[in-house]
Amino acid sequence: MEFTVSQIAAMLGGQVEGDGNAKIRMLAKIQDAKGGQIAFLSNPKYENYIYTTQASAVIVSKDFKPRKAIQSALIVVDNPYSSFTVLLEEYHRMVSFQKSGVEEPSFIGANSSTGQNLYRGAFSYIGNNVKIGDNVKIYPHVYVGDNCVVGNNVILHPNVKLYADSKIGNNCVLHAGVVIGSDGFGFAPQNDGTYKSIPQMGNVVIEDDVVIGANTVIDCATLYGDSTIIRQGVKLDNLIQVAHNVEIGKNTVIAAQSGVSGSTKIGEQCVIAGQVGIAGHLVIANKTSIGAQAGIPKSIKEEGLKLIGYPVFDVKDYFKSYAVFKRLPDLNYRLRELEKKVLGNGVEQPE
Amino acid sequence: MEFTVSQIAAMLGGQVEGDGNAKIRMLAKIQDAKGGQIAFLSNPKYENYIYTTQASAVIVSKDFKPRKAIQSALIVVDNPYSSFTVLLEEYHRMVSFQKSGVEEPSFIGANSSTGQNLYRGAFSYIGNNVKIGDNVKIYPHVYVGDNCVVGNNVILHPNVKLYADSKIGNNCVLHAGVVIGSDGFGFAPQNDGTYKSIPQMGNVVIEDDVVIGANTVIDCATLYGDSTIIRQGVKLDNLIQVAHNVEIGKNTVIAAQSGVSGSTKIGEQCVIAGQVGIAGHLVIANKTSIGAQAGIPKSIKEEGLKLIGYPVFDVKDYFKSYAVFKRLPDLNYRLRELEKKVLGNGVEQPE
Amino acid sequence: MEFTVSQIAAMLGGQVEGDGNAKIRMLAKIQDAKGGQIAFLSNPKYENYIYTTQASAVIVSKDFKPRKAIQSALIVVDNPYSSFTVLLEEYHRMVSFQKSGVEEPSFIGANSSTGQNLYRGAFSYIGNNVKIGDNVKIYPHVYVGDNCVVGNNVILHPNVKLYADSKIGNNCVLHAGVVIGSDGFGFAPQNDGTYKSIPQMGNVVIEDDVVIGANTVIDCATLYGDSTIIRQGVKLDNLIQVAHNVEIGKNTVIAAQSGVSGSTKIGEQCVIAGQVGIAGHLVIANKTSIGAQAGIPKSIKEEGLKLIGYPVFDVKDYFKSYAVFKRLPDLNYRLRELEKKVLGNGVEQPE
Repeated sequence: MEFTVSQIAAMLGGQVEGDGNAKIRMLAKIQDAKGGQIAFLSNPKYENYIYTTQASAVIVSKDFKPRKAIQSALIVVDNPYSSFTVLLEEYHRMVSFQKSGVEEPSFIGANSSTGQNLYRGAFSYIGNNVKIGDNVKIYPHVYVGDNCVVGNNVILHPNVKLYADSKIGNNCVLHAGVVIGSDGFGFAPQNDGTYKSIPQMGNVVIEDDVVIGANTVIDCATLYGDSTIIRQGVKLDNLIQVAHNVEIGKNTVIAAQSGVSGSTKIGEQCVIAGQVGIAGHLVIANKTSIGAQAGIPKSIKEEGLKLIGYPVFDVKDYFKSYAVFKRLPDLNYRLRELEKKVLGNGVEQPE
Repeated sequence: MEFTVSQIAAMLGGQVEGDGNAKIRMLAKIQDAKGGQIAFLSNPKYENYIYTTQASAVIVSKDFKPRKAIQSALIVVDNPYSSFTVLLEEYHRMVSFQKSGVEEPSFIGANSSTGQNLYRGAFSYIGNNVKIGDNVKIYPHVYVGDNCVVGNNVILHPNVKLYADSKIGNNCVLHAGVVIGSDGFGFAPQNDGTYKSIPQMGNVVIEDDVVIGANTVIDCATLYGDSTIIRQGVKLDNLIQVAHNVEIGKNTVIAAQSGVSGSTKIGEQCVIAGQVGIAGHLVIANKTSIGAQAGIPKSIKEEGLKLIGYPVFDVKDYFKSYAVFKRLPDLNYRLRELEKKVLGNGVEQPE
Repeated sequence: MEFTVSQIAAMLGGQVEGDGNAKIRMLAKIQDAKGGQIAFLSNPKYENYIYTTQASAVIVSKDFKPRKAIQSALIVVDNPYSSFTVLLEEYHRMVSFQKSGVEEPSFIGANSSTGQNLYRGAFSYIGNNVKIGDNVKIYPHVYVGDNCVVGNNVILHPNVKLYADSKIGNNCVLHAGVVIGSDGFGFAPQNDGTYKSIPQMGNVVIEDDVVIGANTVIDCATLYGDSTIIRQGVKLDNLIQVAHNVEIGKNTVIAAQSGVSGSTKIGEQCVIAGQVGIAGHLVIANKTSIGAQAGIPKSIKEEGLKLIGYPVFDVKDYFKSYAVFKRLPDLNYRLRELEKKVLGNGVEQPE
């Protein structure tokens, strides 16, 4: 990647002051930047750096009035921070999608097709009857089982595992070690105390714009024709457990290490913190907000509640109760003292 | 896989009505079934579907009396649901075990042997001195370290990792990303504040009929000659931590994201819910039942208890206490009011 | 590995009694040892085994006076247990580092260098511009992304995944399935309810002497030039979540399944138990000790505290409060009885 300062200014709709032909190859903080790099100045407390930085260019605000000479080219914009963010995103997109071509050895089975501008890393495995869309990046050690369908603009980071029959929508990112479609935890107890495995025949469907964090696991549905479903725009963090037949609604966000038990249906636009546990066969209303480490044993029917605790209740009430919990030994003492006074000393005291 | 309706009826001990030569290639729900598929009708509320389904065959009960004409062939049995389950299991078995042969490139070290009807996927790795039984399915990216022993009818899903010296019994299923035999977390504190690693020299032994969920980790035992042991019939869900020198008793079931600390011995037929934590060096009695997110800091000696909370106590008592916990601010208020009344207003009030 | 008894005695600074030329190939417990193996006798209650063991040699204390004839050669030392530990460590080091050479197929990109005495397992992948130090063991299915730097004496167990730009210090051990440098969980909410991914441009820096357990995930920092940092001597157990921009101080130890949210800075010499959750943007003082399953929503400023609960407070106080919690229904009953007595039966009773 290499652009001139003028090309970047054009991209940002900004004005160049200084050498518009300087070459930019990388982004950096103003205090660290070197030649060939571009930085930005937004917070006035970093102003001094602009007079000494080795950056080839700095993005500055229209309102910025230099107090000394500046070596770097300037790109003058309305909002330097948001302009820099645009560059970061562009850079990130280019880096994420820069890989292309097929590295060998890699494996592709019978009747499988891949789209345009594919990256297929060494040691990646694609089974039979798989359909892969355009602009898909399949990193090394990825496994795509038979009959999977993967949409366009998808990134499967190293070691993602898609069991057979999984469906992944467009613009999804699955991080390293994600497992999609493993067997649900279903066992029928037998009279002799053993458990018999219930065959898990369904699949997992992941809609568009979903991001899934590293080492998260999503089990397949139990019955043939059923699916565990992750709706459009859902963001799942690392090390999350999603059990069989779960459905997670549009744009719901779940933080690391939370777990959702079988057949639970989570609504849209929910925000679920880390290490939360949600029992099976529940319905969680839209826009529910759940605090860290909470436990949810019952359905939540009202929309927009903020809950915490095990079992969960209202966040504010939880903290009020918890404040008294911390003083329980004192409460207990005061109650005894009162009992002595009212009932006399002869009363039988619980220890 | 392709059977005639008559062949399936023979398998189920049922009677055919209609075209016994129709070909069946897949199972489906009655509301979704297409030509070449077989469905079942058990719940009367789905009866209407049987008159319109495109299924080539439907399994029905002896008691079923059609009210209209049916296009599909019928297989008449005593219990359509359980017959369908038999087919599902058979189908699942065939699908699970249909892979066979060796895909290349794959790696097998010196002095290692494999049994009959093996599947060894591309990029799978088998070290030196390994023994693999009959009907074993080793999916792509599986790693089997030196000196491992794997029994018959075992499925190692993609990316299972067996450290050296692990032993896996017969009929086990290990899901994607499972790690067996990683180092236990043992460190000796030194005077300078650093920790010295204690070499972890033992192994992991997994007995017959064990199922282990995706990305679960089981550490090896510390001392040479010792083993972390998972007894026959144990079922472990996804993302579980089993530390060094743990023993999990026969037919015990543990749900996702629970953790068992070092040297703890869990009894037989226990049922442990999700996100439970069990401290180290404990003994948990047979048939103990632990609720979700519970914490267990002490041994449980009596069999058959149902426990919850942190630290755990009886489930019913927990919920009674928790009901009062939710009203603690009110309790506190009532206690103060009583104190005012009994002790007078001059009493020093805790805030 | 094969040594004579005399060679081992020399290594331990001990005296040989018996056959100094006997060959030792393995270590074992005295009750299990066979020919070619060496055991030790430290605890007097195991003394009987020394008269019957088939071990070719036994390490004994200077104070040990045999009561019967012993077949095995003896190595007499000051402290048999610590001498045996020295042997164990030596053996473990030899086993851990015995692999060397390059197995094929394996992949190494452009401009990447590796040091002396390398092991590079089959199906391992090293990207472009990677620097690998001396005595590094890269097991099968390891992925090392572009521009990574790996120090000397590092073990990357099977399936470790290093995203691009990760830095690993000297003497580190990363267990199977560890993910380093995955995207932090950063999403900007949009007006239409969707979330836009914030590009994650930083990296992860792991200093010397760090051990990381299986399937643990460490996210990269958000901004270009920033790092998630794991300081020297840190030990992380299995299945831990470390979010973007976290810093974990020197010699801090964290047990399995704990999670640290974004931008939190944990001090040195902390001991954090299993399944703990730590919120984001906190500072945790040095030498803090956190009990299992605790939740930490606020910074901890005082050093050396021992905390538990959700939210955490002092361990002893927690257990005192919890003792009353278990008796809350009784407390509630006693309060009502007192109210009846003081306020009369007509008082309105909360249910």
